[in-house]
Amino acid sequence: MSQKEIPYKIYLEESEMPTAWYNLRADMKNKPAPLLNAATHERMTAEELAGVFCEELIRQELDDQNPYYEIPKAIRDFYKMYRPSPLVRAYCLEEKLQTPAKIYYKFEGNNTSGSHKLNSAIAQAYYAKQQGLTGVTTETGAGQWGTALSMACSYFGLDCKVYMVKCSYEQKPFRREVMRTYGASVTPSPSMETAVGRKILAEHPGTGGSLGCAISEAVEKASQTEGYRYVLGSVLNQVMLHQSIIGLETKTAMDKYGIKPDVIIGCAGGGSNLGGLIAPFMGEKVRGEADYRFIAVEPASCPSFTRGVYAYDYCDTGMVCPLSKMYTLGSGFMPAANHSGGLRYHGMNSTLSQLYADGLMEAVSVKQTDVFAAAEDFARVEGILPAPESSHAIRVAIDEAMKCKETGEEKTILFGLTGTGYFDMLAYEKFHDGKMTDYIPTDEEIRKNFDKLPKVQ
Amino acid sequence: MSQKEIPYKIYLEESEMPTAWYNLRADMKNKPAPLLNAATHERMTAEELAGVFCEELIRQELDDQNPYYEIPKAIRDFYKMYRPSPLVRAYCLEEKLQTPAKIYYKFEGNNTSGSHKLNSAIAQAYYAKQQGLTGVTTETGAGQWGTALSMACSYFGLDCKVYMVKCSYEQKPFRREVMRTYGASVTPSPSMETAVGRKILAEHPGTGGSLGCAISEAVEKASQTEGYRYVLGSVLNQVMLHQSIIGLETKTAMDKYGIKPDVIIGCAGGGSNLGGLIAPFMGEKVRGEADYRFIAVEPASCPSFTRGVYAYDYCDTGMVCPLSKMYTLGSGFMPAANHSGGLRYHGMNSTLSQLYADGLMEAVSVKQTDVFAAAEDFARVEGILPAPESSHAIRVAIDEAMKCKETGEEKTILFGLTGTGYFDMLAYEKFHDGKMTDYIPTDEEIRKNFDKLPKVQ
Repeated sequence: MSQKEIPYKIYLEESEMPTAWYNLRADMKNKPAPLLNAATHERMTAEELAGVFCEELIRQELDDQNPYYEIPKAIRDFYKMYRPSPLVRAYCLEEKLQTPAKIYYKFEGNNTSGSHKLNSAIAQAYYAKQQGLTGVTTETGAGQWGTALSMACSYFGLDCKVYMVKCSYEQKPFRREVMRTYGASVTPSPSMETAVGRKILAEHPGTGGSLGCAISEAVEKASQTEGYRYVLGSVLNQVMLHQSIIGLETKTAMDKYGIKPDVIIGCAGGGSNLGGLIAPFMGEKVRGEADYRFIAVEPASCPSFTRGVYAYDYCDTGMVCPLSKMYTLGSGFMPAANHSGGLRYHGMNSTLSQLYADGLMEAVSVKQTDVFAAAEDFARVEGILPAPESSHAIRVAIDEAMKCKETGEEKTILFGLTGTGYFDMLAYEKFHDGKMTDYIPTDEEIRKNFDKLPKVQ
Repeated sequence: MSQKEIPYKIYLEESEMPTAWYNLRADMKNKPAPLLNAATHERMTAEELAGVFCEELIRQELDDQNPYYEIPKAIRDFYKMYRPSPLVRAYCLEEKLQTPAKIYYKFEGNNTSGSHKLNSAIAQAYYAKQQGLTGVTTETGAGQWGTALSMACSYFGLDCKVYMVKCSYEQKPFRREVMRTYGASVTPSPSMETAVGRKILAEHPGTGGSLGCAISEAVEKASQTEGYRYVLGSVLNQVMLHQSIIGLETKTAMDKYGIKPDVIIGCAGGGSNLGGLIAPFMGEKVRGEADYRFIAVEPASCPSFTRGVYAYDYCDTGMVCPLSKMYTLGSGFMPAANHSGGLRYHGMNSTLSQLYADGLMEAVSVKQTDVFAAAEDFARVEGILPAPESSHAIRVAIDEAMKCKETGEEKTILFGLTGTGYFDMLAYEKFHDGKMTDYIPTDEEIRKNFDKLPKVQ
């Protein structure tokens, strides 16, 4: 087939949109390790999870056999409001870099949540509604996940209770107001609404809170409120399943134009966007049908893959969630102030961890100031103002394209542009003013949390 | 032709994108009145304008004969980065309203400037570059125009000097940082950089500035800096010409699916987005080929069409620009604090003014709290968080759809959704907290500025 002229943006027709999510685990020879009960270290059962999570989502979480899940019509209809997202050929960036590489990015920021988070939020809200629940709880740090969930709950008429880390609640009033616009109740955490919140406030009056504390409050609230469950925006395999929509659309669009990527790059915090982007490509790789290079990009300040250990660990600092086997810096690891709030997580999705352990994926860490320099370069030529998280992938895509310039190779580079940076302008301001610093933890700081890993036999 | 199934979003192919702007004035029987020299009240010549404006833009401004301007390839390439914008069928809004009306909106917010402003910014930057200029100056209030121009100048390697009304500069640091990301120099106005700025600061120490003052500073700076000109984001007919891309894309998309709108609605500040949206449809109307209802929506706090007079007036409070014949509240009219910064303009584009005077278009004014109620309803079902300006059109689109519900008419309603409200969350917060008030000027307040209109024979 002769290669068609590639437009700047490839939008699939509605009729070409995926109708099923892809569960990569089904095709993996080495399956990710199962979740364990934090107290007994026994394999978690659906029954144990049912008090906190929605039933269908538990089924998806525990299923490493079934390769496809049909996307319910109500979710596909919602997807049609903001999807398909464009696959963009970065002609202007290529021109600026003077590289022979061909660069593509899948842009997930064109919706009000500003990121890919909405892909899973709408699915989780749907299953909660189907189960007859009246509401869900969650935590949010920077606010993208909380915004996405608020939108999804508003659409299905569910109550949405968000515990927002108190310092973010105060520093990011705009995010909070977006959530309120969608009818969510937003509580600064720690709060007096929960036992764990009251305990923390008694011990640490005036604390700005933490994600770990907010998770604990959200889980407590869900488990003690009739008709409520708790939902989570990353890390879990159910989230990665929903996010496979990113990769499936990308692959359909690329196949349509006869494009095959050589390198696929994504930023990695909890891992859901990266996992979603690579899913169908990695599926081909693990089935032996095609080969691709995959690169996970993480901040040097929170380097789970590149400096962590592969072990069972707590998913949350409050230790209320099950144990997951993953690359981790230890649940007690406190990442330094870093403006990529979405990447400040001590662990990593268990599926991606297994793939990395098996050598099927690479990982690199990058410094924050280098990331913002790439973000600004990208914004100026491609128009889009990227989120700091997404800009980790931009940094490495540019680095790879510059290597092609040296070698003359015409590689095809694909990266995930997960979101926009409109609510991150304080970070951009620091960068413009030369006040942004890079923090790289010492070996001692990294190792000290390893001792506190649960001793799983 | 049988009507195809209408997707949620209609995206044109790149090959279907307009290659020429449409100059509505060429087809109007009653042409808009010409610009006059503010001192002599004689018709402005291209030579007189050349010290302040770019040559090609002056040609476009003064031309009411040539119906089409080919869009230069460099601009079409830039358009491809964020256009075509989607024409959205508001299925979810229709469902919520339970109306038999079919509602469509053209969404211009999916770019980093957050609005349609980029359509003209890139054209103006291009012509400045073609003329061999090194930079442009402009003013910005809320910051959308300044952002758009920064992006455009960054793309073509032009200096961009933005005078930002000081109170906005301080209250909207995020907008300022977006402009800095694109390399613009942003100066709070009034400043010590210009004679007019120093004069105002001496007379009013500590003033928060005004748009009128910022215009005066930008014009002074442009006329006194070698290789610089001044550019403007609305009101002028050249801007409306560039914004015709909105209407042309919309019409192509509607024709493709056999859709004919009955009512076309847009918000009106300076008039450029409304003028751009309606241009090809109004062209058919003035040529007698088809009929449509057009509705301009303005804030009750700044009602140029509905309570102003049709007369020659100054375009700016500083009275440095030419006189334009338009619906105006008088250049001394100070609109009350209103969160739709983009609609706080005392006058109106001269072409739209002539159309309104000739009875070819209707106008309504709406109250701010009603506008935010519509914005929130829309956000919850359609996902997009609209700008307050755009929400004026939403308000009237909903009102028209509800009339259809009463009468049972299956009208097709089209409105322009000009942008997103991510930087307007303080206004949303006021609305959520019940602290937003409506201000409607008294007849006395409206009339008192009419006495100061220039006496043009």
